Amino acid sequence: MKVLIGSRQVPEIERMLSDAPPGVEVHFLPQGESLREHIADVDILFGHLGEDAIPEANALRWVHQPHAGVEGFMYPAFKASDVILTNCRGLYGTQIAEHAFALLLSITRRIPDQLEFMKTKHWERVPCVELAGMTMGILGLGGIGRAIAARAQAFEFNIIAADIEPIDKPDTVSELFGLDELMAFLAKSNILMVCCPSTPETHKLLSYAQFNQMPDDSYVVNVSRGKVIDEEALVEALQGAKLAGAGLDVTYTEPCPPESPLWEQQNVILTSHSAGSSQHIRKRAMQLFIDNLHRYVEGKPLVNVVDKQKGY
Amino acid sequence: MKVLIGSRQVPEIERMLSDAPPGVEVHFLPQGESLREHIADVDILFGHLGEDAIPEANALRWVHQPHAGVEGFMYPAFKASDVILTNCRGLYGTQIAEHAFALLLSITRRIPDQLEFMKTKHWERVPCVELAGMTMGILGLGGIGRAIAARAQAFEFNIIAADIEPIDKPDTVSELFGLDELMAFLAKSNILMVCCPSTPETHKLLSYAQFNQMPDDSYVVNVSRGKVIDEEALVEALQGAKLAGAGLDVTYTEPCPPESPLWEQQNVILTSHSAGSSQHIRKRAMQLFIDNLHRYVEGKPLVNVVDKQKGY
Repeated sequence: MKVLIGSRQVPEIERMLSDAPPGVEVHFLPQGESLREHIADVDILFGHLGEDAIPEANALRWVHQPHAGVEGFMYPAFKASDVILTNCRGLYGTQIAEHAFALLLSITRRIPDQLEFMKTKHWERVPCVELAGMTMGILGLGGIGRAIAARAQAFEFNIIAADIEPIDKPDTVSELFGLDELMAFLAKSNILMVCCPSTPETHKLLSYAQFNQMPDDSYVVNVSRGKVIDEEALVEALQGAKLAGAGLDVTYTEPCPPESPLWEQQNVILTSHSAGSSQHIRKRAMQLFIDNLHRYVEGKPLVNVVDKQKGY
Repeated sequence: MKVLIGSRQVPEIERMLSDAPPGVEVHFLPQGESLREHIADVDILFGHLGEDAIPEANALRWVHQPHAGVEGFMYPAFKASDVILTNCRGLYGTQIAEHAFALLLSITRRIPDQLEFMKTKHWERVPCVELAGMTMGILGLGGIGRAIAARAQAFEFNIIAADIEPIDKPDTVSELFGLDELMAFLAKSNILMVCCPSTPETHKLLSYAQFNQMPDDSYVVNVSRGKVIDEEALVEALQGAKLAGAGLDVTYTEPCPPESPLWEQQNVILTSHSAGSSQHIRKRAMQLFIDNLHRYVEGKPLVNVVDKQKGY
């Protein structure tokens, strides 16, 4: 059984692969070479499978995406194939929740202003906003949304959530809405945490009418996918009284293009899609893959299988 | 009974004083005039009583400090007097805990770097540090320390604390140290949260030996009083490998003087003593005072009485 690792890893991570099950041959895609040339006899791929490579992937039975988002796999030839897709959902909640709070609290505690003051050695107390008691609306109550909810409870938010799936309401959440009740959910959200995947259903889900529905002086934090937000509508809401600030780890197009007004918009923090960064993530992602390899070889069901029709 | 409010308040807050008990006359110190000229027949003062004014304060029986820190009252004539001192402890935990997390998370999630990137429309993912699983040491487990501990628990820290008082260990804290065990406490603290008052015992409590005791690549956040830290030692620890960053709402001298190396030190965020800022604080502080006024008139014990010998 041939496993191909789609990119070189640091030695510490590559060494972990010595725990692969016996009989599994592990290869690495040589630096600078195309996957297309090396995929023909590969059974299992760790990495991204592009649309150009799939016609050559004749032996392929399983792809593991070493991140959480899988929209890059949602092209017809892959969706129609019987190749199994697994991802790293569940490994990102902790660091992304920390990042979401970094974005939110930086805005409410005026960190950008204070950093500017430091440049001129200027000491000035500026009014900050206390968040406790406000309502936080979490859009998408998966692993990331739940990790945010757990922290938000200790910060004394009233927590509500909206999800496309008919899930059970966790104790941290006071009210759970379906996606058909989005407007009622937004009307209550002083802070909107965007934690849902990019799918056809969530594309530009948050636009003019949706932002307009939120209470005045609200905050938006997006730590999942930029395509969920109509950025023209977001900028208009920030320029009016609707939104007091936005913390965006992700943008509609990445890197955020130079012509985007978000770069210079007051009270916006952009963080270059780094919410998933953690000193632990590569090790965790490889461990998940190795554990799944053992399951695969033993004929057990894999964990983190993606529903290719739903796109998550 | 004559009450003097030491400075004009916004109308909304001044109107709250209509709930003062009957028989209490409320006056405001006229803008720009000195307290010394107006204190002679005052029974109760809301505000600061300077050393210059105390010889005139012949009728004074109670001063309410509308903040939490009271080191400005710890001069001999006031300590020796039988004037009662109350403060606003307990009203700052929430917003200061939010501020403490803003400082810590801004550093670990690289917000200052990302804000600089934004100026040149530069999109670059930089490695961030995940905090979960680290040990947070809380120095001073009063209202602020406990509010931080509650939030830190949801952020999956191992929480330890050190306090000068023989207090009971709250459930959020895994290990509680006396101040005589400071070095053992610091040896375990990946993140040190400074939340203790400024007293003779805490003056430059954290100096070379103390920072050196901490694990490498630790973080220090100070949201209480700058006098607790020897800043030369702090800068040395930041320039070596000991400390990976410091978030300081307070400095030894305030405003932080232009010659301080903290202004330009890598991985330091200064926030101009604004951790106590909240849209709710003035209202809460006045309500506490009015509730205490009723207790005073009714002969009941006041809340938040300061121990003038301990200084908190």
